[in-house]
Amino acid sequence: MTYRTSGARTAAQYGAVAVLVRAVGPPGLRTTHTGSVTYASGQPAVPAAAISVEDANRIVRLTNRGRRVRMRLVTSGRQEPDAESANVVGEIRGRERPDEVVLLGGHLDSWDVGTGASDDGVGCVVTWEAARLMKKLGIRPRRTVRVVLWTNEENGLRGANAYAERYMAAAANHVFALESDSGVFAPAALGFSGSAAARAMIQQIATLLAPIGMSEITTGGGGADIGPIAQAGNVPTMAYLGDAARYFVIHHTAADTIERIAPEELSRAAAAIAVVTYAVAEMPERLPR
Amino acid sequence: MTYRTSGARTAAQYGAVAVLVRAVGPPGLRTTHTGSVTYASGQPAVPAAAISVEDANRIVRLTNRGRRVRMRLVTSGRQEPDAESANVVGEIRGRERPDEVVLLGGHLDSWDVGTGASDDGVGCVVTWEAARLMKKLGIRPRRTVRVVLWTNEENGLRGANAYAERYMAAAANHVFALESDSGVFAPAALGFSGSAAARAMIQQIATLLAPIGMSEITTGGGGADIGPIAQAGNVPTMAYLGDAARYFVIHHTAADTIERIAPEELSRAAAAIAVVTYAVAEMPERLPR
Repeated sequence: MTYRTSGARTAAQYGAVAVLVRAVGPPGLRTTHTGSVTYASGQPAVPAAAISVEDANRIVRLTNRGRRVRMRLVTSGRQEPDAESANVVGEIRGRERPDEVVLLGGHLDSWDVGTGASDDGVGCVVTWEAARLMKKLGIRPRRTVRVVLWTNEENGLRGANAYAERYMAAAANHVFALESDSGVFAPAALGFSGSAAARAMIQQIATLLAPIGMSEITTGGGGADIGPIAQAGNVPTMAYLGDAARYFVIHHTAADTIERIAPEELSRAAAAIAVVTYAVAEMPERLPR
Repeated sequence: MTYRTSGARTAAQYGAVAVLVRAVGPPGLRTTHTGSVTYASGQPAVPAAAISVEDANRIVRLTNRGRRVRMRLVTSGRQEPDAESANVVGEIRGRERPDEVVLLGGHLDSWDVGTGASDDGVGCVVTWEAARLMKKLGIRPRRTVRVVLWTNEENGLRGANAYAERYMAAAANHVFALESDSGVFAPAALGFSGSAAARAMIQQIATLLAPIGMSEITTGGGGADIGPIAQAGNVPTMAYLGDAARYFVIHHTAADTIERIAPEELSRAAAAIAVVTYAVAEMPERLPR
């Protein structure tokens, strides 16, 4: 991913006129992966494109045989001016401690090659659905449950930063933050980052997920969108971690479409997230830092 | 496949200006499959293109919601004039009955979107390799073993037809014909078409393949390229049948490249084909019709 993000910038320093990056991801079907590319100010923003693993291999084979490889690169990418966008926020106000917030969400934007079903349509659906389930069941937990569907995750984190700026004074009142931005492909797991004391409580809550096979909490909470507020408030974080092998095959590709989404995997994610966020929002003691 | 082959012709009869065909194949990664399209003389050869299953689904969803779907189709396909091409033929002349031929092969041509590794590069390699193994081991069987790498399988069978025309008088001297044009993906099998008496002998030969797990002969011999000569001579036929589920994901797509080929699957195919063709070429009695 370093090559994708920094390849063009670094190559430009050495006089490259364009950069082709071997697609970042496991073997697909001659599949290319898009993603963010950064440029240095004062240096040319040279064109950058992904080529499939297969095509990269072919270039390597030709080069190893002493063949000179010539390419003609036609790209259609361009930088549009900024446009206004917004986070979408919904919440169930806490019945006893409304100022204490359990934050959860995914991001609304996606790369244009596919339709963003896994990155991050499902993240929006399962976190929103967790709150909807509470509402449907007439549950108002002790603390506030806030769902945020962030904007501009892929391209600058402006939604996440705007959220953190707006709630900076209340950062320490964020009790827990959960992000779903790794798909919902099975086998999925819940990852947690926080103190040992917090982990012990989360692990206890997770025993409720035994019927859906998700009672084991792994390491690795956090996420791009909850990052800024979590850092500001030293907030314990959780990530819903879909199977990475299945996720990264389609991640940022034309194949990230609704066909990949299995309803039962979606439901399992929504159920797991609903249980954990409800328990953290409802339990008498606050989840420790 | 009927839709791909005949869709444009049939739609043109009803006034269609172009045809989009839902890609023929199991779900890929927004993958399109090319293939032959036939036109009727005296009717317009309307443009035809494949779209991915995902895109076809999307059109269906939009249409079902009452949305009008408009598309702009840009295709670059064109009909080139015929050019000369050739079958590639190699043989080990039989030491006792050189006029009796055991025929085997694959086809050299492929669709342009990929590189034809599976369709039918592997078919050429494994049949050629079977003969090479005999040569390397200093074996000259009783009958002639002839490897043919056919040209123009995908686009008219001219290589297969030219072979049949040239050897028409000797068609009945073709004792056995084997084609590998279904890839070599495991689990693979050998399929046979012929009389019960011939099958019984082939089944006995196949017990030699127990160490590589291929001793069970299924039905379904034959193949496009051995078809004309086999029909002319009522020749018993065999097909090397790679796993269809894995084959058709990449069949006629940009993903039919060398990366898909597993050396051990290739070796197993060459070994199985070498054993069967050698045994049929060597055994005292001729394989019955």
